[in-house]
Amino acid sequence: MARIALDAMGGDHAPRATVAGALLALADLDPAHTLQLVGRTAVITGQLDELLGAEFAGHSAHRHRIEIIEAPDVIEMTDKPSAALRGKPNSSMLVGLRLQADGKSDGFVSAGNTGAQMAASMVALRLHAGLKRPAIATVFPTARKPVVVLDSGANVDCSAEELVQFARLGAVYAEDILGRENPGIGLLSIGEEPEKGNTVTKEAHELLRTAGLNFLGNVEGRDIPRGANEHGDLDVVVCDGFVGNVLLKFYEGVAPLMVGMLVKAGMDKAQIMGGLRELDYSEHGGAPLLGVRGVSIICHGRSSPEAIKNAIKVAVRASDSRMDEHIGRRLEAVNGASA
Amino acid sequence: MARIALDAMGGDHAPRATVAGALLALADLDPAHTLQLVGRTAVITGQLDELLGAEFAGHSAHRHRIEIIEAPDVIEMTDKPSAALRGKPNSSMLVGLRLQADGKSDGFVSAGNTGAQMAASMVALRLHAGLKRPAIATVFPTARKPVVVLDSGANVDCSAEELVQFARLGAVYAEDILGRENPGIGLLSIGEEPEKGNTVTKEAHELLRTAGLNFLGNVEGRDIPRGANEHGDLDVVVCDGFVGNVLLKFYEGVAPLMVGMLVKAGMDKAQIMGGLRELDYSEHGGAPLLGVRGVSIICHGRSSPEAIKNAIKVAVRASDSRMDEHIGRRLEAVNGASA
Repeated sequence: MARIALDAMGGDHAPRATVAGALLALADLDPAHTLQLVGRTAVITGQLDELLGAEFAGHSAHRHRIEIIEAPDVIEMTDKPSAALRGKPNSSMLVGLRLQADGKSDGFVSAGNTGAQMAASMVALRLHAGLKRPAIATVFPTARKPVVVLDSGANVDCSAEELVQFARLGAVYAEDILGRENPGIGLLSIGEEPEKGNTVTKEAHELLRTAGLNFLGNVEGRDIPRGANEHGDLDVVVCDGFVGNVLLKFYEGVAPLMVGMLVKAGMDKAQIMGGLRELDYSEHGGAPLLGVRGVSIICHGRSSPEAIKNAIKVAVRASDSRMDEHIGRRLEAVNGASA
Repeated sequence: MARIALDAMGGDHAPRATVAGALLALADLDPAHTLQLVGRTAVITGQLDELLGAEFAGHSAHRHRIEIIEAPDVIEMTDKPSAALRGKPNSSMLVGLRLQADGKSDGFVSAGNTGAQMAASMVALRLHAGLKRPAIATVFPTARKPVVVLDSGANVDCSAEELVQFARLGAVYAEDILGRENPGIGLLSIGEEPEKGNTVTKEAHELLRTAGLNFLGNVEGRDIPRGANEHGDLDVVVCDGFVGNVLLKFYEGVAPLMVGMLVKAGMDKAQIMGGLRELDYSEHGGAPLLGVRGVSIICHGRSSPEAIKNAIKVAVRASDSRMDEHIGRRLEAVNGASA
């Protein structure tokens, strides 16, 4: 059983979307799992009462699986991460993450300020030994199975060693959350040959060959939607956070463009949206911040109740599968070997 | 009137696709324009006779606007650029580009080995003063007008100064080839705020503010398919060649994925393809290599006759609009100002 803390105040549509997402998640999850809604108690109870009194009336049976945790400070989307951490010590983010550090919770989910969540996660949970920075792992839908792309925004200007660490983190994620065995790892570059790429990727390619991972070589942009390169099926694609973030946002932006073109060509919008449902980020839950000692799931600021629900389910899976322990053990083995 | 040299031997489907593309182009272009087919004379005449004797029989009237230029060496797709240049001094690429250097041609088009075309263009045409490297400018379809993205693969590991040069090159391209006035320039990054990005983009942002261009600030991945950011409509998006190449190939790969999803959902493939026709790279012609003293248009290796035709038309437009002169003058003004 997992106890997942949800930042009730975080996101463009909070607290409505977060509280509604919590109710949807409880209905889906095994009854042993419970939720901790973190934020201003009055706001959360008000929102809960409103939803349970109306469209979510059928969910009242799950109300006892919700605990409300008071956190008076709210970090805004526009706050600078470092200033928010210093100036708002009792924010829903820090309070929610501290529960985990204190052994009172098994995971944290937020749709709030991503930079602040990263900083707060590093402060409250700390990083595994040997890591300098965490990485955001995002699931990209493909023609085959979904592929984990990391880093998708936590780190710009990465070293080759950091890209190798991302590969290790992504491999555990693919195993524990996506259920892949011996996950296939690709390095994003601009040609399949090892000598293609920029300085960092060329160096990372050499390091990955001997990293003890199932390294499938370089991956080009077009291989991601295919979910495979010429050496096999991809489970993990490694890149720096600049490229990963540009790609992620581009992917989000391309679908509406294509839908618009097809609607203009006289096709039925509802049918198109149905056909492309898999591309909807809200279907894939949040993006875990990998490398911190614990579970911290980052959601899109615009998250719907459905997206929050799926992110909570990812947090439960991360906790149940002991992903964090596996990451720690994997990194220890490498640190030990190189020491 | 323009005389455009076409590398008849270059591309996965050469010489059939190149010669057929030449015939399609002649039918579309003003009769004053002529083509120079560069390669092995026997191969080209054989291909011409075959096409004019069958499906292109109606094109015989344009035959006199084709000159065949002998070039015995052929650069393969797998050749290393530097080795190909040294070992094959009379390749269709070098012969075709030298025509321009000798004042006997006004533009060059190839679907062959891109690295070799870049190297050969720099050797045969040389770069404008003040430039260290050329850039590949690719047109991305958007929900508004198409946007020029550069560099899309000629340079990895770019400096901030190089990104500013790309902005200047792209601005002239947008004016001369796309007919945009005072083109809006965006810098690809991972947030709209100037302080978001990696070391190079943050520095480039500062330089672009005072570069005398219509700089619209940072652009996120999702702004490209929209063709606009919060400051206005985009005509040019600047990025290093690593990110640009990854994005370009990703864009090419996403469309088939979505088409596959929609077909699976029971929608009509022909109708989908029709609706997404604008996304087809072959509609937009080749990608000019900007910065060399002359016109060198890079085509996709898989180019169809239609794609070759459109690339030839881009070469004609580049020649007619004197794009190269405008680039030279623009760069001189900057070099003069900074000297």
